[in-house]
Amino acid sequence: MSDMKPNIAAAKAALSHIEMDESPVTIRNKSRDFFWYSPVLKAEMDHLEADFVVNPKSEAEVIEVLKVCYAHDVPVTMRGGGTGNYGQAMPLAGGCVMHITGMNRIKEIGQGYVIAEPGIIIKELDAELKEKSGQELRMFPSTYSQASLGGFVAGGSGGVGSANWGALRDLGNINRLRIVTMEAEPRVLEFTGEELHRVSHAYGTNGIITELEMPLAPAYDWVEMFVRFDTFRAATEFAGTLTKEPGILIKLASVYGAPIAHKYFQRVKAHVTEDDHLCGLMVAPQSMDGFLTLLARFDEGEVIYRSDDVVWDRHPGPIYEYGWNHTTLRALKFEKDLTYLQVRYGGDVDKVMAASEAFADKLYMHLEVMREGGGISFAGLPIVQPMSKAELDQLVADHEAMGCMIFNPHRYTLEEGGRQSADQRQLDFKREADPKGLLNPGKMITWDEPDFDYSDMYSYKGILPKPEAAE
Amino acid sequence: MSDMKPNIAAAKAALSHIEMDESPVTIRNKSRDFFWYSPVLKAEMDHLEADFVVNPKSEAEVIEVLKVCYAHDVPVTMRGGGTGNYGQAMPLAGGCVMHITGMNRIKEIGQGYVIAEPGIIIKELDAELKEKSGQELRMFPSTYSQASLGGFVAGGSGGVGSANWGALRDLGNINRLRIVTMEAEPRVLEFTGEELHRVSHAYGTNGIITELEMPLAPAYDWVEMFVRFDTFRAATEFAGTLTKEPGILIKLASVYGAPIAHKYFQRVKAHVTEDDHLCGLMVAPQSMDGFLTLLARFDEGEVIYRSDDVVWDRHPGPIYEYGWNHTTLRALKFEKDLTYLQVRYGGDVDKVMAASEAFADKLYMHLEVMREGGGISFAGLPIVQPMSKAELDQLVADHEAMGCMIFNPHRYTLEEGGRQSADQRQLDFKREADPKGLLNPGKMITWDEPDFDYSDMYSYKGILPKPEAAE
Ligand SMILES: Cc1cc2nc3c(=O)[nH]c(=O)nc-3n(C[C@H](O)[C@H](O)[C@H](O)COP(=O)(O)OP(=O)(O)OC[C@H]3O[C@@H](n4cnc5c(N)ncnc54)[C@H](O)[C@@H]3O)c2cc1C
Ligand SMILES: Cc1cc2nc3c(=O)[nH]c(=O)nc-3n(C[C@H](O)[C@H](O)[C@H](O)COP(=O)(O)OP(=O)(O)OC[C@H]3O[C@@H](n4cnc5c(N)ncnc54)[C@H](O)[C@@H]3O)c2cc1C
Repeated sequence: MSDMKPNIAAAKAALSHIEMDESPVTIRNKSRDFFWYSPVLKAEMDHLEADFVVNPKSEAEVIEVLKVCYAHDVPVTMRGGGTGNYGQAMPLAGGCVMHITGMNRIKEIGQGYVIAEPGIIIKELDAELKEKSGQELRMFPSTYSQASLGGFVAGGSGGVGSANWGALRDLGNINRLRIVTMEAEPRVLEFTGEELHRVSHAYGTNGIITELEMPLAPAYDWVEMFVRFDTFRAATEFAGTLTKEPGILIKLASVYGAPIAHKYFQRVKAHVTEDDHLCGLMVAPQSMDGFLTLLARFDEGEVIYRSDDVVWDRHPGPIYEYGWNHTTLRALKFEKDLTYLQVRYGGDVDKVMAASEAFADKLYMHLEVMREGGGISFAGLPIVQPMSKAELDQLVADHEAMGCMIFNPHRYTLEEGGRQSADQRQLDFKREADPKGLLNPGKMITWDEPDFDYSDMYSYKGILPKPEAAE
Repeated sequence: MSDMKPNIAAAKAALSHIEMDESPVTIRNKSRDFFWYSPVLKAEMDHLEADFVVNPKSEAEVIEVLKVCYAHDVPVTMRGGGTGNYGQAMPLAGGCVMHITGMNRIKEIGQGYVIAEPGIIIKELDAELKEKSGQELRMFPSTYSQASLGGFVAGGSGGVGSANWGALRDLGNINRLRIVTMEAEPRVLEFTGEELHRVSHAYGTNGIITELEMPLAPAYDWVEMFVRFDTFRAATEFAGTLTKEPGILIKLASVYGAPIAHKYFQRVKAHVTEDDHLCGLMVAPQSMDGFLTLLARFDEGEVIYRSDDVVWDRHPGPIYEYGWNHTTLRALKFEKDLTYLQVRYGGDVDKVMAASEAFADKLYMHLEVMREGGGISFAGLPIVQPMSKAELDQLVADHEAMGCMIFNPHRYTLEEGGRQSADQRQLDFKREADPKGLLNPGKMITWDEPDFDYSDMYSYKGILPKPEAAE
């Protein structure tokens, strides 16, 4: 890509019949996502801006955009809700941002599945599913009210519902994806089975999703709760045990180590002390008897809030907006310099406790419990004290030395946010589907630099120069 | 109980306004269940017969029966579908059999739960649930078409659905039970939480269930399949891995070691060889893509039958009638002297394989995979070659020596069919609810003989004498 000269003007002219944003403010806004969560990414990406933004309403228009941009060597970066927190949706090399939320129809609702367009906002999809069929998506990101279905599949990993159904990438959690390639004549492909992984969580680097078939679960009036514990271990053990119980149906099991709730959860503050550890939970109403029975088996553990019986003066809002990356968001509102990590501890409470103790002066523990192949896994999103990039890198290394896997949220590439190695299926498919390397350039290291050694953060060579540097 | 003299005639007279069976054939039939599955139980129980059988239609009539029988020292043994296979429903001391299938109303269907009377046949309940609400019970015994809901909760342990939801006793799988005690003035009690375990799987020894609130799951058009494997290990590993996948929704995962399918499954025989090992599966339609993807990751594994695309000349019928105790039933139809065991191997495939090899000349392996606290458990119902009671006892001991837990199906007491120790909650509640010990006498050892040492099979002293002995 980096050697090509995009002909922006020609592409814009050829696409003039498709809805385009003209206001510079809108173009700038639609070139940004939640990258600023990371101080590291903020320093690298704050200046990025697309040359133009198109808003296609149909697959035919998507095809046209891809064909035209291909012809004129213009990079294309997709944007759904723009809530990604690794700069996934940000156009490193400028060019075209394709904003897809206008392509948002529900095509079919069946028993156990839905077929929809990628731009639909997940909360709106769920509302219609619930009304029409008593069903809902198995899982959603905590950015429920803003995120698009396609953006979740292309950029997300799991969320509220993963306590029951596992991660988005687990077999059975996506049924079918329809894809458009970026070639002289874009092709439309349908993927199922192993082929799904070519494009799921690929940041739109190798194909554009134009239709999704997703499995559904029954919609219940989930009872949302905060449960207080005296120790972090007790809260963690309870959340883990709860998630393991096969007969108790839950949707969310978060653990907020002290002092997170008291310090950052404004409407919870009055009900906890600095030393209280909380679980944030969503439990099916028909599982409340089993839930309360389990809770009573734990010495500590006190339900301080129930959504089906709110006695607090100020309603705390939906519990899922305390979990997953919303925990970090709430902390950032109070302390702008805080940062965070994404850690996988596995299913072992002792390992969680060891990390909690080892890094007690550097971070506050926050866990999300997920079902994972025959067991559970504690996914950590600890809130990290302000520190330099070098210190943060050290903290990552220290975690890895303890056997904790890090998905580094301070990187914008697929590999660095994942397992630091090529996903061969994604790379192979990019060769087929995006021969010019125009789709979301700079996000797949192995496309640009197959021999990259991961000793330091990857810097895409084609990234737009920073204003100072450009002067 | 054993010292009391039941006044049968007085009790019958006092209950004459309640429906009673008069035909000796009916009385004999309603005094028997599937005890004959076990050659050991057959030898001990074949002669048992109630003095009379009542068929109450309401809780008020249940209360009357209990009150009258209490007054006249008449033992009362409950009967639902009479499909229990440990003689649970058989009146060891004669007296009254209370047949409850006339008390079979559905009282309320809600989102995620149902409230019903105990006598309803499970298949009929599910049909109505599905029609009215798109829901079904989480699990059912393979005797679906004959078993009652109350009999399942009082006498069963799990079944089709346990691959997802775990065992009936797991927290959350029963929500509420309404109970009538056997006292001078019977009391009506409502149990939830820990109290459920007083009476669930208590064989009606300490209270009569008159209403149940059960959690529901969505009803899907489950795809039923047989999948063929070359080795027992491969079939076992596949069934285990499948059950562990959080995103693939299944209802049944059975493994039939060779030569079970060829030898005993009449309509399957033509499609397998003597050396083929089968999995019998029920998979949600929306999980078929994930399922087939997983299957393709296993070298072997060939779908030979799918209920959504039947190409066999003769329809094999529902897959669940091949699983759980139906496997044994099918074998018994061919070889009357065969017997069986109930084994828990835990989640470790190697332990299953070790048992399979150690006992290769004595049994054919049959497994049911269940979800169990954070993992899975292989529940074995191996088909055992004809052998004497002493040899069978030795086989049990050999299993236990390998660390396999046995739930002995050749015993009629709660303790011997379970963990060979008192269930203190059940015993304590029997003291309260059945002070005269009239409910299903002889089934709870710890009530009769607290110091029993389990060195040999328990023989209830009050059991009706065998005809020869009686002469
Ligand atoms: C507060 C907060 C909480 C979050 N919680 C979660 C969480 O619980 N779980 C989770 O997984 N993530 C979470 N995230 C990350 C993000 O919100 C989600 O992944 C979300 O689903 C992204 O959807 P979106 O529509 O905003 O995608 P965008 O940010 O618009 O896009 C995400 C990626 O997908 C690509 N893309 C978008 N549409 C398409 C398409 N049609 N075809 C191909 N590629 C496409 C984009 O180019 C980009 O690379 C959170 C982020 C924040 C800021
Ligand atoms: C071929 C076959 C397959 C089977 N498969 C399974 C299986 O998959 N899973 C499983 O768990 N079991 C299984 N069983 C055992 C049995 O079929 C089930 O447990 C079934 O649910 C029993 O229901 P029922 O109505 O026939 O009970 P019954 O046999 O009539 O009664 C069972 C016990 O409950 C008591 N009881 C009945 N009603 C009440 C009441 N209202 N209040 C209090 N006590 C009561 C009886 O006294 C008796 O002790 C199987 C048996 C056979 C023969």
